[in-house]
Amino acid sequence: MNSSKIPLNRLGAVEAASAIERNEISCVALVQACLDRIDERNHEVEAFVAYDTDKALAAARQVDASPRGPLLRGVPFAVKDVLDTSEYPTQYGSDIYRLFQPALEAACVVMAKNQGAILLGKVATGEFATQTPSRAKNPLRLTHTPGGSSSGSAAAVADFMVPAAFATQTTGSIVRPAIYCGVVGYKPSFDLIATAGLKALSPSQDTIGVIARKVEDAAFFTLGLHGAITAGSFVARPRIALCMSRQWDYIKPETSQALERLAHRLELAGCAVNRIWLPENLERLIGIQPRLFKYEARQTLANERLLHENQLSPRLRARLQDNNDPGLDEYVSMRQQVREAQEHAKGLFRDADAILYPAASGEAESGLDSAGDPRFGALWTLLHLPSISFPIDLGPTGLPLGAQLIGGFGQDTRLLAVANAVTKMIEPVQA
Amino acid sequence: MNSSKIPLNRLGAVEAASAIERNEISCVALVQACLDRIDERNHEVEAFVAYDTDKALAAARQVDASPRGPLLRGVPFAVKDVLDTSEYPTQYGSDIYRLFQPALEAACVVMAKNQGAILLGKVATGEFATQTPSRAKNPLRLTHTPGGSSSGSAAAVADFMVPAAFATQTTGSIVRPAIYCGVVGYKPSFDLIATAGLKALSPSQDTIGVIARKVEDAAFFTLGLHGAITAGSFVARPRIALCMSRQWDYIKPETSQALERLAHRLELAGCAVNRIWLPENLERLIGIQPRLFKYEARQTLANERLLHENQLSPRLRARLQDNNDPGLDEYVSMRQQVREAQEHAKGLFRDADAILYPAASGEAESGLDSAGDPRFGALWTLLHLPSISFPIDLGPTGLPLGAQLIGGFGQDTRLLAVANAVTKMIEPVQA
Repeated sequence: MNSSKIPLNRLGAVEAASAIERNEISCVALVQACLDRIDERNHEVEAFVAYDTDKALAAARQVDASPRGPLLRGVPFAVKDVLDTSEYPTQYGSDIYRLFQPALEAACVVMAKNQGAILLGKVATGEFATQTPSRAKNPLRLTHTPGGSSSGSAAAVADFMVPAAFATQTTGSIVRPAIYCGVVGYKPSFDLIATAGLKALSPSQDTIGVIARKVEDAAFFTLGLHGAITAGSFVARPRIALCMSRQWDYIKPETSQALERLAHRLELAGCAVNRIWLPENLERLIGIQPRLFKYEARQTLANERLLHENQLSPRLRARLQDNNDPGLDEYVSMRQQVREAQEHAKGLFRDADAILYPAASGEAESGLDSAGDPRFGALWTLLHLPSISFPIDLGPTGLPLGAQLIGGFGQDTRLLAVANAVTKMIEPVQA
Repeated sequence: MNSSKIPLNRLGAVEAASAIERNEISCVALVQACLDRIDERNHEVEAFVAYDTDKALAAARQVDASPRGPLLRGVPFAVKDVLDTSEYPTQYGSDIYRLFQPALEAACVVMAKNQGAILLGKVATGEFATQTPSRAKNPLRLTHTPGGSSSGSAAAVADFMVPAAFATQTTGSIVRPAIYCGVVGYKPSFDLIATAGLKALSPSQDTIGVIARKVEDAAFFTLGLHGAITAGSFVARPRIALCMSRQWDYIKPETSQALERLAHRLELAGCAVNRIWLPENLERLIGIQPRLFKYEARQTLANERLLHENQLSPRLRARLQDNNDPGLDEYVSMRQQVREAQEHAKGLFRDADAILYPAASGEAESGLDSAGDPRFGALWTLLHLPSISFPIDLGPTGLPLGAQLIGGFGQDTRLLAVANAVTKMIEPVQA
């Protein structure tokens, strides 16, 4: 691949790092191309909520002046605005924190910079990473939602403003917006990316991940943070379990059809695809997730709920209201059920490398008042399992339909290799 | 009990709340008594690192002016200085954060205030809640360590400056200092007290708890945060498993003798006391804990390690140094082992209401350069099990020896009831 032939802002993270390492491009030129794209498009897309040309270019010049360096050297990235940054204000998507400047920087941001990545700025988030939409729009169709809560991360990456962005998921906030915008959303195993400096919401579920345009880019950026090298590996004939559940009642026919077509293609390519039904105890877990979420969010957002209630959106205020709330006993019982289910879920991977599951009900919805239905991420987030979503087809109006693959706990590199293989098998559809 | 007969600063949390509720004492008088004690003693004990008489009295006057109120109405409390407070600077026990003023307040502090408790100020912590000692001294003998890292919490409560203090434990930082100072240290089930606003260290282990002078006070304060009422219940004849392990090699003879005497007393009182050996897989878990800790702490303290290394103590700097570190694969494997062990540990409570285990090797050590050996808390913290420590006897030099009781995950109210019963059975020894 001759990376100099395509506009630099369209380079993926792997391509960009390798072109810089080979001195084919300068980091300044790359960052300038990304900034130009933001300047050109952000007034419409509103993915970035803060960026600073001078700061980004200064960091890029430092990279160009330095010799061969760490793994992510020169790779531009953006940060969802629920993660603290010391160079930029951090508003958590809430009026309460207008112009708030944290003193500390989130650990993952420090780690990315330490591996040589270039922070371009902050991207939009739903209010405290909940479903209250940000102002970001879907770059594939500006009248449509980019999804949420990682709306800015998905929109900025999809619109070629930046090759990779930190995102977070507590229910379905990475995997869904990635599909709505036609990119890749990777939610690692719980705690794989340290959450220090993340504005907590429901700490037993809050997970930091990465949105990029290809599986290999999400893998490279995430593992590179930890100083781990990825070889873009893939599993030749992954064993896939297409997992049915009662949640399938909430997906549109085009999505189930696309999933079936994908399963068929994978079978033709030599993969073993088994149909399984979600065990009943995991179905039940999906049912308790909203109560677990609420118990934790009411504590975690105690400041905001008790001292700034009138600055919460009506949606979030209603969600946090005291109303037949779980008590302490119910909470610990739910945590115990989750723990048992995490152990039990290991069985799902006895005969499968990954589970195939819906990640969104269908195409991105029209309008900007709703960020779409997050439910398809809930179980896998609760179970702490790594998952990765990607587009698999186009829907009736021409926007992407997608799916997610889910791996065993801690089996992130294997899941990424499976997802790499699966997306390569369907590449003609994706392009 | 006529609580007006003893100095007000010596009232426990339950006594104080009930005396205020019955209008026997004013909250201002109670807070003033605590502040007087701090004024009198803190230049020697150095438990408090920040307090403000005007702020505390203003809050107390509000309580006196208000009618009957929430559960913790009028109860003074202190906050370990690794928890963010908006009224007081928060230094995390580190020079890096001298005069640092967080904008947000930790969720548990907001919740305590919301239940009517009165924040007296911040108490000393080891550097980022690690074993680097604070300046606090053991009020029972000022030449001796109060333990760590919750040194200020234990010292302030033991010295009758405040009836309850928030503390945190990542290895043994609540249960040990409580014993060194002759008070009660309660580490709840993981996440029972939300950690939003806690400076993270090793997030899969970091647990917020409460130090008080009696079991009932720690229970009342902790459950009261959540709006849950405790009746000071106890289990008449708890079934106790005295748990032996290879860690017993690290306790002094006086501690093992005191534990044996305690077991004997409990048997005489009609309790079933079984001797058990720690299963081998849990022994192994103790062995991996330092590596798990290091992997997480290196990420979580990325800011400090990478940008302010020269302001870390030599001890912490050495501990965080890159040196045969676990990689990502080892980390996820350790997390998986922990998760399996958490499930497996349920078996420990099949025939026992609580496990009896050492919480400190012996009496508080002489000198202030070491905060003592935290190892006896490591396993139970890693397993997320609730534990509570309390003095059981006096050692050869007249300082307390102690033990901890450990309960099943989420079985906090049962564990507190068992601990309440056990401490009442041995009260003459404690007094």
